[in-house]
This record gives sequence, structure tokens and C-alpha cells, in this order.
Amino acid sequence: MPALTSDRSYAGKTVAIIGGGVIGASWAALFLVNGLKVIVSDPDPEIESKVQALMAAALPALQALGYEAVDVAANLSFEKDNARAVAHADIVQECGPEKPEFKQALWKIIEAAAPKGALLCSSSSTIPASVQFTQMADQSRLLVGHPFNPPHLMPLVEVVPTPKTDPAITARALAFYRGVGKVALEIKKEVPGFVANRLQAAIFQESVFLVAEGVVSLDQLDDVVTNSLGIRWATSGPFLSFHLGGGPGGLPHFLEHLGPPMEAAWKYLGKASLDDATKARLIDQLGASYGASSFYALSETRDEKEVAVINGLAHVQHAS
Amino acid sequence: MPALTSDRSYAGKTVAIIGGGVIGASWAALFLVNGLKVIVSDPDPEIESKVQALMAAALPALQALGYEAVDVAANLSFEKDNARAVAHADIVQECGPEKPEFKQALWKIIEAAAPKGALLCSSSSTIPASVQFTQMADQSRLLVGHPFNPPHLMPLVEVVPTPKTDPAITARALAFYRGVGKVALEIKKEVPGFVANRLQAAIFQESVFLVAEGVVSLDQLDDVVTNSLGIRWATSGPFLSFHLGGGPGGLPHFLEHLGPPMEAAWKYLGKASLDDATKARLIDQLGASYGASSFYALSETRDEKEVAVINGLAHVQHAS
Repeated sequence: MPALTSDRSYAGKTVAIIGGGVIGASWAALFLVNGLKVIVSDPDPEIESKVQALMAAALPALQALGYEAVDVAANLSFEKDNARAVAHADIVQECGPEKPEFKQALWKIIEAAAPKGALLCSSSSTIPASVQFTQMADQSRLLVGHPFNPPHLMPLVEVVPTPKTDPAITARALAFYRGVGKVALEIKKEVPGFVANRLQAAIFQESVFLVAEGVVSLDQLDDVVTNSLGIRWATSGPFLSFHLGGGPGGLPHFLEHLGPPMEAAWKYLGKASLDDATKARLIDQLGASYGASSFYALSETRDEKEVAVINGLAHVQHAS
Repeated sequence: MPALTSDRSYAGKTVAIIGGGVIGASWAALFLVNGLKVIVSDPDPEIESKVQALMAAALPALQALGYEAVDVAANLSFEKDNARAVAHADIVQECGPEKPEFKQALWKIIEAAAPKGALLCSSSSTIPASVQFTQMADQSRLLVGHPFNPPHLMPLVEVVPTPKTDPAITARALAFYRGVGKVALEIKKEVPGFVANRLQAAIFQESVFLVAEGVVSLDQLDDVVTNSLGIRWATSGPFLSFHLGGGPGGLPHFLEHLGPPMEAAWKYLGKASLDDATKARLIDQLGASYGASSFYALSETRDEKEVAVINGLAHVQHAS
């Protein structure tokens, strides 16, 4: 049963992707199987072969999720000049370098060159739109549409408007990402790291602390997560997990009885540092754990597993 | 394809479970489908019907994982007296109240009554074995075998020896849990919360902070996790995820280039408190998000999803 396909309601629309790196190429693959026309704008002289290679790696996963990959090559083109690339775009998905000055100058060019009704979204994971829009005449047009890597596979898109964003623009962005099969969620405030990356930073700090302290090895830490919390969180988020973990009394019972030990735990959690000794320890243990397999073999297995999880969950969702 | 079944190498052995609550009954179901004889020891006058009901809910998931549920009832018995319950036990799995005095007194009784070669394990999530063994004559026998809830479904068991534990006992405990189909990992130091619950506490603090600050609602926070990090961590732990997320340069490249922003993120992560206002906010949003479904309906869906994830991942593992 198809898991994360869409009804291709944006087929025929044109999206300009600024920056054809790992994120841009993954977006391109997703947009193409949704029937959109994709123009990639990137100054790299080898951009065409690089994007083709990244897309070739992404398409099997999209097909495993239920998409057909017909006409993909016919709808993909390249245009190095940013202004020409966006001239007829319905959507602009920016995936350029994470440098404020670059993005500020870019949006000035795009605003002048793109159609007035084009949807303008940045993929940035770290620079909020209110830092990017400083040179725009109409600052109500810009927002962040931050995907979770890899964008063609991971359902989440964090849609982060600024205080100036027109609510109608936010609604259009949410509708667009949902229209290409994503789970788009509106983040209400521009906080650093948005939501997913903050949660990831929190668990990573404790992970580094526990390995640095010698409580577990690096691969044991990974095995703890994949054999417990990962399975739990793929199916229910932290709040629903504790709602059900508290028994029939639910979250209220949990907060009453396990709230105090939880607050005590927050006090004893570790502080980590990525100093030279810690980095050396991590890299040494990494080699012992994963050194025998190539980056590409490990990535392929990870993608297959992610597809298996997404498809497995979709079966349950459709059945219930 | 069966996912988490075992070769039933412990079939015919006898396990005494002290405490027939949610954890004890879940262990009972797992041990029974592995062919063990199970004696549940619990003072509750209604313990038999309660354990039967919990087991009836657990067996479908075990069957979905590939276990057969034959002879389950025939191998289950009850004995309120702790000493009599352990008299012929090969393994004692303690699941009593999380009170140090209770466990200290209990282990004294069990040590005197159980066979000298019996494996003695506590399911405690919070009280290390070195706090529990104070009244034992031979303190080298005790360790923690902490399951992740629900034990019959979740692969992980954290095996936590004390500094006094005989390494041969630790090895026997690891072999036993692996023999009943679990992923048993040895935790090298007795730190509060062991590993999985510390990681869970870290992500929960940031989750509560983000909802308390109004960045996202409670159900959005859950949706962020299930549509991004959960899928990632069900397939690859935090270190392997960043090893692959850093591109072909792997974790060394990640630490070099994204280490500084990661350390900066650790500084801006939130501090949360479960004060009355926060609890009220969480419970209010919980009702709006999940209030329409019963605890039992939500739990059943969660179990189905967890089985789907475990089985989906097992297919990939067996294929690669």
C-alpha cells in the first residue's frame, strides 16, 4: 500500500530550487515524482551530473513508497542565473549555503525576478526567515520550510513563519508541502533550531556524555536507541508515550506520580563537550563499530529501513 | 518472517516473577511463549485474573512477532509466598515496588530460599542492584535486568551489574535475555536512570519546554517526533545517524564542521519545570489532542504500530 504518496495535486506547477546540493537534489526528486517541473539553479559547473547521481539514489526509495518515476528526466532543467531560474516559478525552494548575507542578497534578487504570486520558502535549518528577509520590499512573503533529511523520505516539514508573514502565505506553504505528500507542521515561534533539531541536540548531548563517561560504548548507545526509544517514538511521540505509559490514568497520573522523579532526572543529566579528547574517543569507537562498512552500504541499509518503517506504519494507519 | 522470536533454548526452565503488575505480566507472557514455566508471586488477592487479562492483551503482539502461544496457560502458576515461589527457580525476575527497603528485604528471603545457582535479576528502572543487595550474604549474585516497557514487545534489556557482580553472572544474564529473544546490552556503570531513561528524560525536558513556551502544541510536538526523529532512531542510533548525515566524510567531518553549532545548541536548550501551570497546560492540550480516544484504543494502535516497525525492520535485516 502506498505510504507517503500524494494525489499529485501540484502536477504541472513549476518549482525553482536554489542550490543543488544534498538537500536540493532530494527535494528535486520528491517534486519530480509529484509531477512538478523542476529548475535547479546552482553555479557548480558539474551540477547536472551531481544532481542526476543524487536523484538516481533517491528514486528507488520514492518508488518503494508508492510513487511512479515516469517523466522525471523530462521535467528537470538547470539554469545557473538565479533571476532567470525563478522567472516563471510557482514555488521557490531555497537550499543555498547557510550564510545570512548570501540569503539576504539572494531574496532581493528573487523577489524582483519571480512572479508576484510565487511562494518563497527557505530550507534553512538555522537561519530564521526574519534574518533572511532584510533586503526584501515585501517581508510578508518569506518563511522557512525546513525539511528533515533526507527530504524525499522523511515526512516532516517544519513551516516557520516570521512575525511579519502573511497568514495566507503560511497556509499556502502548508498546503503545498502536504500536496507533495509531506507532514507539514506550523511552528509558532522562530526559536533557534526550530523543534526537531533541538530535540536531537538534547538527546545527542546525553549520548556524548554517556559515551565520554564510559557508561556505554558508542555502538551500544546506538543499539539502546534503535531497540527501545526509536521504536517507541516512530509510533508515538514523547507525550502520547507517557500518556499510555502511565496506565489507564494517562498523562495526569504520570505527571502526578512520575513527575517528581522526572524533574530529579533533569537535574542529573550530563553536560557534554566536543573537546579534542571526546572527539578522538568517539572517532576511535566509531571505527571499531562501523568501520568495516562503507558509507554507501550503511546509507543504503538505512534508507531501506526507513522505507520499511514508513510503509509498515502506513499499513497500520490505513487499517485502523 | 519472524522478527523477535528465539530458538526457545530456555524452554523447560523455571522462572519466578516477583510482582505481577504491568511489567511482571508482560515478562510472564514473553517467558511463556519461550516455553519456560512461570510462577508469579504477588500478594494481591485478584492477581490471577489481573495477570490473565494483561497476558491476553500481550499474546496477539507476540504471535504477530512470530511466536506460537501453545501451552501458555499450562505453564503458568501462582504462589503468594516468595520463598516457596523461588524454591525451584532457575531464574528470578523481580518486578516489585520501587522501594529500596522492600527490595533489600526481599533479596534476603530469595537468597535463602532459591537454588544456589539461580540467576537473580531485578527489573528496577531506578534502584541499582548495589542499593538492593545490602542484606545478601553473596552480593556477587545480583544485577539489574531492566526491560523497556512493554518487555514482551521492546527488544532492549539493560543488564546492569554492580562493581561486585561476578562477571560470569553478568554473562549468564546476557545469555538468558538473548535466549528469550531480547537485545541485551551490558551497561558498564551504575548511573541513575541507566541509559534509555536518561535519553528519554533529556528529550522530554526539551519537549515540555517547547510546549510551555508556546513554540508548538503538545500534539504537534508528538507529530514532529513520529515524522522525523522517531523514524530515524528506529533505524539508526544518534551516532550512526550523524555518521551518515555528515556525508561521505562521516562522523569526523560532522564533528569538525557541525560540532561547534551543536555545542552552541546545547547552550540554548531549555530548562523545564513540571509546576502546576505547566501540568495544567499539558493536561489541557492532551485532552484536545487525544481525549476523543480511549486509553485502550490508543494502546492497541500503539502496539500494532510497534509490531509493524519491528517486523518491517526485521525484513530488511534478514535481507541484507
